[in-house]
Amino acid sequence: MKIAILPGDGIGPEIVEQAVKVLNALGESFEMETAPVGGAGYEASGHPLPEATLKLAMEADAVLFGAVGDWKYDTLDRPLRPEQAILGLRKNLKLFANLRPAIMYPELAGASTLKPEVVSGLDILIIRELTGDIYFGQPRGVRVCPDGPFKGEREGFDTMRYAESEIRRIAHVAFQAAQKRDKRLTSVDKANVLETFQFWKDIVTEVHKEYPDVALDHMYVDNAAMQLVRAPKKFDVIVTGNMFGDILSDQASMLTGSIGMLPSASLDANNKGLYEPSHGSAPDIAGKGVANPLATILSAAMMLRYSLNKAEQADRIENAVKKVLAQGLRTPDIYEAGTTKVGTGEMGQAVLQAL
Amino acid sequence: MKIAILPGDGIGPEIVEQAVKVLNALGESFEMETAPVGGAGYEASGHPLPEATLKLAMEADAVLFGAVGDWKYDTLDRPLRPEQAILGLRKNLKLFANLRPAIMYPELAGASTLKPEVVSGLDILIIRELTGDIYFGQPRGVRVCPDGPFKGEREGFDTMRYAESEIRRIAHVAFQAAQKRDKRLTSVDKANVLETFQFWKDIVTEVHKEYPDVALDHMYVDNAAMQLVRAPKKFDVIVTGNMFGDILSDQASMLTGSIGMLPSASLDANNKGLYEPSHGSAPDIAGKGVANPLATILSAAMMLRYSLNKAEQADRIENAVKKVLAQGLRTPDIYEAGTTKVGTGEMGQAVLQAL
Ligand SMILES: CC(C)[C@H](C(=O)O)[C@@H](O)C(=O)O
Ligand SMILES: CC(C)[C@H](C(=O)O)[C@@H](O)C(=O)O
Repeated sequence: MKIAILPGDGIGPEIVEQAVKVLNALGESFEMETAPVGGAGYEASGHPLPEATLKLAMEADAVLFGAVGDWKYDTLDRPLRPEQAILGLRKNLKLFANLRPAIMYPELAGASTLKPEVVSGLDILIIRELTGDIYFGQPRGVRVCPDGPFKGEREGFDTMRYAESEIRRIAHVAFQAAQKRDKRLTSVDKANVLETFQFWKDIVTEVHKEYPDVALDHMYVDNAAMQLVRAPKKFDVIVTGNMFGDILSDQASMLTGSIGMLPSASLDANNKGLYEPSHGSAPDIAGKGVANPLATILSAAMMLRYSLNKAEQADRIENAVKKVLAQGLRTPDIYEAGTTKVGTGEMGQAVLQAL
Repeated sequence: MKIAILPGDGIGPEIVEQAVKVLNALGESFEMETAPVGGAGYEASGHPLPEATLKLAMEADAVLFGAVGDWKYDTLDRPLRPEQAILGLRKNLKLFANLRPAIMYPELAGASTLKPEVVSGLDILIIRELTGDIYFGQPRGVRVCPDGPFKGEREGFDTMRYAESEIRRIAHVAFQAAQKRDKRLTSVDKANVLETFQFWKDIVTEVHKEYPDVALDHMYVDNAAMQLVRAPKKFDVIVTGNMFGDILSDQASMLTGSIGMLPSASLDANNKGLYEPSHGSAPDIAGKGVANPLATILSAAMMLRYSLNKAEQADRIENAVKKVLAQGLRTPDIYEAGTTKVGTGEMGQAVLQAL
């Protein structure tokens, strides 16, 4: 089995290095090949998603991704900026299902800005559609406004859209994920304003008929943003579109206070996937050996479970991570008085030992 | 001066009643006229925004609005649903600037789900553009997908758009609001993905040249949703589009834990405005006399300040509200052990007495 390793920018290389060490220690024979992406891709060959990198990702059985982005690329034209690599990989690999767990580790309860009783034991799964919506809809651009009260002026515009089969397939993923958990699914929309999301709501309601064992409710996105603050533990699985999912999944991960712990998976229709930590490239701490590698190590575990059919190995890694937390080891982002502060490499080493 | 009073549905009538009592006690001679809106409008004349109601709102110098919506209208066709009245009023009255303060009253610090040190003293102002964006953009609807991988299927679609002058005018409102506060403005966009918001960012940056005393920064909407959880007090004024503002302003108001306290103003270019509490119609507690009237009373204060040029009277009301909080009076939504629980009418009466 072949894994494409795309470390990217900022802390990407150092956290991916730890995850690769962990994968290598499992006693499996994975073929791994590394390629540059994001700013590193641009430096190497003038494009954030070099052709050879895309080819490797398409051939591989799974992709382990670090993070991309750095201030120094902010002045590049948009098509050359690092984050375009992420959008390009999602689109080309047809990774339509983004799974983002927001889990509160009992040992890290103090890290949240929310009161312990509001978030302790938090365990929600956000499923974000990842290849449709206003992210990719055409037409888009800046044009002279063709009519209405602003006729003749310049305007920026984009197209939000979802086709029926796009909604159906993400709904199936979400209902099936809910079946494996507490069997409750909240579909987040803005059906009171948007045609796209009235359609979304109608289709999700139809698909629900195939999953009578799952309780479905519908919630407006503004209300969902409120309920995630007020009573996040009331959610089990949330499914929503690309744009709303971008906002809500980041909000939800911040509830835990330890975004350095949260993995993510982006899957296609055949469970091929791209796995990456939920946090970003953090260029301010890059190269200092203080970044938390656990989200990436846990992303590797998700990869074993979803794409490589090695659930046992995934369990081993997840248990090893729990063990190092129980041992009191903490990178600076999750450090609290009374625990032991360690760096990126030491944390990776500790997980290896715990395996 | 003429004020249109639109109580609406659910708890709307009972909370507006208290605000009207307070306005009447100021010793000014306001002409007030009441009209049905939302579900009440539909019951009265078959449309959530009856013609006579719209006419009254357009003629008046300001509009005091309660809340609209009730489950019993959920099965109506979308154009007849209560919330269409809000959209219709915003569009027809050209209320493009929505001001939503998120303020933490010291007496209510315990009500938040966030830790006291994260939210105590919170005082941010969210300025949401209210008549543009994907809320009103054309074309929109459900159609047969014209091209691409889903050609021939049904798809829902909407158009996001902002014309240059729409961005300019809301940017001016935001910079001027920041000048009266801590002189820091955060413009929230998604310029890394959306053409509309790259354009937004460019125009806001241009308008900034006229306000060199204000510090401007730009933040992606997903990051803003995270920072509102992580460190909300770092914000002063936030300006954003209609869709992102819908989500972030609700999220921000929930941070305080006392959404029953938060007013809002929606202004046109001449400071005519519609004033309403940030919370909804809460049909579950309607008619029970337990709703918190303070957000509506504080909305009336905003009306005096922004539309009726009576800043002193606005101060009087705001001070009276602080006084009743200091006296320990609380409606059930903000009740804590050690305070005195009161109903809607008693709370209104207490504000009157404190005036
Ligand atoms: C970098 C950006 C294009 C991306 C997105 O908006 O999807 C990021 O925010 C994410 O959530 O992975
Ligand atoms: C009711 C709905 C149309 C409205 C909106 O989305 O603007 C509401 O959520 C609000 O924020 O006032």
